[in-house]
Amino acid sequence: MAAPVRAAPPVRALCFDIFGTVVDWYGSISAELVRLGLPVDAAAFTLAWRAGYQPAMADVRSGRLPWTNIDGLHRRILDRLLAERGITLPEDEAAQLNRIWHRLNPWPDSVPGLQLLKPSFTLATLSNGNLSLLVAMARHGGLPWDAVLSAELFQHYKPDPEVYLGAARLLDVAPAELMMVAAHPSDLRAAAACGLRTAYVRRPLEHGPGGPMEPCTPGEFDIACDSFIELAQALAQAAA
Amino acid sequence: MAAPVRAAPPVRALCFDIFGTVVDWYGSISAELVRLGLPVDAAAFTLAWRAGYQPAMADVRSGRLPWTNIDGLHRRILDRLLAERGITLPEDEAAQLNRIWHRLNPWPDSVPGLQLLKPSFTLATLSNGNLSLLVAMARHGGLPWDAVLSAELFQHYKPDPEVYLGAARLLDVAPAELMMVAAHPSDLRAAAACGLRTAYVRRPLEHGPGGPMEPCTPGEFDIACDSFIELAQALAQAAA
Repeated sequence: MAAPVRAAPPVRALCFDIFGTVVDWYGSISAELVRLGLPVDAAAFTLAWRAGYQPAMADVRSGRLPWTNIDGLHRRILDRLLAERGITLPEDEAAQLNRIWHRLNPWPDSVPGLQLLKPSFTLATLSNGNLSLLVAMARHGGLPWDAVLSAELFQHYKPDPEVYLGAARLLDVAPAELMMVAAHPSDLRAAAACGLRTAYVRRPLEHGPGGPMEPCTPGEFDIACDSFIELAQALAQAAA
Repeated sequence: MAAPVRAAPPVRALCFDIFGTVVDWYGSISAELVRLGLPVDAAAFTLAWRAGYQPAMADVRSGRLPWTNIDGLHRRILDRLLAERGITLPEDEAAQLNRIWHRLNPWPDSVPGLQLLKPSFTLATLSNGNLSLLVAMARHGGLPWDAVLSAELFQHYKPDPEVYLGAARLLDVAPAELMMVAAHPSDLRAAAACGLRTAYVRRPLEHGPGGPMEPCTPGEFDIACDSFIELAQALAQAAA
């Protein structure tokens, strides 16, 4: 695995998927639902809220739904889940609950790992989350981004190539100088198809204990690791 | 001056002009030209480089020149200034000199003032500089932005309204909840015309000792002050 990293130009910037890769949506949301005392199965409700996200984005990507940001998509899904369970919430409480996606907690290694990476690399988000959501989340979790980039800036959602190539253009680096970091092989494959480098960070708890992980092939990505600390170590070795 | 601040909704986010407001382009560039030993009058060359910027942006705003980012505009001006003086530089030296705009030093109060403001407000750049330039400058100077916003994202240069309104949209705040901070009354007037709040920070040394300042009227802006420390104090008083 070291050979392809050495043959390519040095990585100058890293862009990070957010939901599941940097922050723990399952743990943060299920705990909040319990705290709120909402009469639902917190784990199942959390998984259903997240599961609604891909079909909703697919509706935008296909043009069935006009451009709608993630706050708007999360709210559509939330309203449906509440209605299915016969729950009505006052508007301010529903809006406040929807903003839980702005207050997700980082995985324990996320902030220390980013701090290790920051002196050597430009660090950017590259998420389907809207920019204001990503900014609020960074302030909540102390995430030291150099730039907050979002699918919203390109009016395309990942895995559309406009998002990966748009990030390289805005950061003024060649695609091969930009590494996508994600817990999702599908995101990384789309980035690689645009010429980006890839780092796979395994997050086995993304969907809760015992939850599923997207399958991938050993050696499929430039780096595969279990934390941002390990990512920093792998990149330091590649540069040595 | 306190009355209009109190009557309006609370300020939630601040966006900052950069060149001259946050960083000292005159001092940084003239010192670098001396260090490089370029056979020019460093002060005059610096002022001419900066003076070429408004006409070049006007060419883009009017459509005479297709969209060109600030790195590209700075380079066009630099090449002209060098040619006028009969100086030829190797391409790598010219490119390196052009990137001086990525390494401008903050005014002494900029970083401590931003640190004071950061707990209470979302802090964003709002500059005609391209995003990669603003990211490099933030890394160079330790500027603690929550979001790096640039005219480049809107394909319009300030003072076009698309820039101010685009920043409010991306930050998901009403224009009246967003305060433009600048050393240039013309920038602030354009922001106010879009419904933004305004903070004027006087930078009498922007064009070097004894240099000109754009005139303005006392009381014209919501806040007028001499440093980001004073800005933080004025906003804390308005909130009290």
